[in-house]
Amino acid sequence: MNMKIKINENYKNLKKSYLFSEIAKRVKAYSEENPSAKIIRLGIGDVTLPLTRSVTEAMTKAVAEMGERETFHGYAPDNGYDFLREAISRHYKRFGVDIPVEEISVSDGAKSDVGNITELFGDNPVLIPDPVYPVYYDSNVMSGRRISFIRADETNGFLPMPEGLSGEGYIIYLCSPNNPTGAVYDHASLKRWVDFAVSTGSLILYDSAYEAYIHGNFPHTIYEIEGARACAIEICSFSKTAGFTGTRCSWTVVPSELSAGGMSLREMWERRQATKFNGVPYVVQRGAEAALSDTGYAECMELVGYYMKNAALIAGVLREKGIFFTGGTSSPYIWMRCPSGMDSWSFFDSLLHGIQVVGTPGAGFGECGEGYFRLTSFGSREATEEAVARLRGFLQ
Amino acid sequence: MNMKIKINENYKNLKKSYLFSEIAKRVKAYSEENPSAKIIRLGIGDVTLPLTRSVTEAMTKAVAEMGERETFHGYAPDNGYDFLREAISRHYKRFGVDIPVEEISVSDGAKSDVGNITELFGDNPVLIPDPVYPVYYDSNVMSGRRISFIRADETNGFLPMPEGLSGEGYIIYLCSPNNPTGAVYDHASLKRWVDFAVSTGSLILYDSAYEAYIHGNFPHTIYEIEGARACAIEICSFSKTAGFTGTRCSWTVVPSELSAGGMSLREMWERRQATKFNGVPYVVQRGAEAALSDTGYAECMELVGYYMKNAALIAGVLREKGIFFTGGTSSPYIWMRCPSGMDSWSFFDSLLHGIQVVGTPGAGFGECGEGYFRLTSFGSREATEEAVARLRGFLQ
Repeated sequence: MNMKIKINENYKNLKKSYLFSEIAKRVKAYSEENPSAKIIRLGIGDVTLPLTRSVTEAMTKAVAEMGERETFHGYAPDNGYDFLREAISRHYKRFGVDIPVEEISVSDGAKSDVGNITELFGDNPVLIPDPVYPVYYDSNVMSGRRISFIRADETNGFLPMPEGLSGEGYIIYLCSPNNPTGAVYDHASLKRWVDFAVSTGSLILYDSAYEAYIHGNFPHTIYEIEGARACAIEICSFSKTAGFTGTRCSWTVVPSELSAGGMSLREMWERRQATKFNGVPYVVQRGAEAALSDTGYAECMELVGYYMKNAALIAGVLREKGIFFTGGTSSPYIWMRCPSGMDSWSFFDSLLHGIQVVGTPGAGFGECGEGYFRLTSFGSREATEEAVARLRGFLQ
Repeated sequence: MNMKIKINENYKNLKKSYLFSEIAKRVKAYSEENPSAKIIRLGIGDVTLPLTRSVTEAMTKAVAEMGERETFHGYAPDNGYDFLREAISRHYKRFGVDIPVEEISVSDGAKSDVGNITELFGDNPVLIPDPVYPVYYDSNVMSGRRISFIRADETNGFLPMPEGLSGEGYIIYLCSPNNPTGAVYDHASLKRWVDFAVSTGSLILYDSAYEAYIHGNFPHTIYEIEGARACAIEICSFSKTAGFTGTRCSWTVVPSELSAGGMSLREMWERRQATKFNGVPYVVQRGAEAALSDTGYAECMELVGYYMKNAALIAGVLREKGIFFTGGTSSPYIWMRCPSGMDSWSFFDSLLHGIQVVGTPGAGFGECGEGYFRLTSFGSREATEEAVARLRGFLQ
């Protein structure tokens, strides 16, 4: 039944994403030919440790409240309960940053906010790092915007910088620590981006979903940088901080200062959410609040510590072998150069067939990802140790 | 800081929504002048009874699973777990309708889906009932579409029909039972809409969020109507069926037959959700599954029955007084004509000042709502009985 309605023709410009289905296909074929092979997956982009005790206790209590008339909660405020917005505001104080509660809106995921916030904007030129999380690109293809890539490579340590860019009024995506490269902007580099955005009247959409993995003196939030309130929206998530990938909670900060075309971006975002979103479950918001309490946050840091020990093991063997990589010290991701000039799918096959370790070919994250490979630290300690031992024997 | 980025200029065409803030303001002013007044709210559009036992048990168990490594769940499938999609598919069999699992996508709310699905479409003319839930209108203003209202009034029983419409390729919003009028399409009337949509190549977006309140022989789903699979997307929710307004779960059915411009609408919707949505919390999906089990559904019907007894009490006094109204028999809403030709805000004031009962002025739901008034059955039995006694004395 071909209807007479017009569709959003931009959808025809989306490329089909083959990355994870192609990985699954190759792994399946190998397993079928080698049924006794013990395959280790270091390609997982999802957490595997359970929710912490503070979180499950808060959620269990909240479920009980929802089951009693006196403590039942109906529609939540569109932007989140104040108890959670206040907890997030306090969380920013851990980094010496003041964010007023009214600038924080709670939602169901960074992916949702990263995609949905583009609705506020007109036809601006968009700058997207390459390689990067594919959602930035796809959501802008859907709205037909002009996209330019800012190239990340070994010369810039996989941290693209603004120098050399001309033009103004950009929408700029930055993700630090980066997915998939694990590279992290330091204060000085991020300041150059903020200065560029301010001087060109551009907007930075700053994805800090991996900030909890930062080790050492790197900015956890773009608002540590002077001038950022005049040019940046920050999107952060409980997914990787508190293991909430299957629990769904995130937040977005839109500073009150931000305006364009005579409109407050914060008011536009609030209107967008009030019209097309109905809040995050009460039970989840109570869990998220607990994750940011002092006890809850210490538990989160234990989860992060577990993964980061895995990352250190992987990074260790690459260092031993003198292989270039980024990430692994402030990120659960390790982004390594494929040895012997191999392309990333060839290296994928060689690891799978040679030592039964599965990772993610860098080419799947953009043109600049060719020749690189992503390993992740979200596996178990045992599996990671075994994979590292196999890599030690395999890599030259 | 006025940036140089272009904004979505359509946001400037949104009207500020004064309805509920104006109600709150007038109630507050009255309360301050009359501190001892016992005000009863029959304007609530939110459920007040707690989650049922099946739901809280399933959610409590799911929280415990999330706290153990062996049973932890990370990212959910973008369109929902099969256990829930299968439960929804089985739910449709209650109405004699077969919906394949792959046509069902689970999301966090009907409001989200109603708003987000418009992204799939180009610049089609849009038909929206007046009066209606304001989200249909606002989400289309945000995307700059041409909106025409289909007028509901006493002559059509507040159920607008397609006769007299010309043109083709419409996006048509239908909500049955309707919010705010409580009016319900019967099979024959809905068939006329389906025939109109099929013959004009139009798409119906069918909001069935209140289907659980239907009493008697009315369609619970548009797919009870022959031809609907060729022209209709249905959006339904657990909010009013299972008291999930603060728990957040809904679903959308996009039949595989639907295509336009050479694209499958189901594939477009799946791509939209995969790009800008990351699934519903595992804990919530387990609760939703439990709500649709035989025991859980019987509990839901008890909640609905409680509210519907309230509705019957309100409807009873209006019938006694010979006042025209719609709703109240297959809907938690009662839409009454204001007595003595009063406009809806005058009647609001007269009820508040006269008998301290708060409802919702119909003018807030559209031009055709002027002169009408919405009462809801979501209050407690005691409050509803008291309000009805006061109305009995007050109405002529």
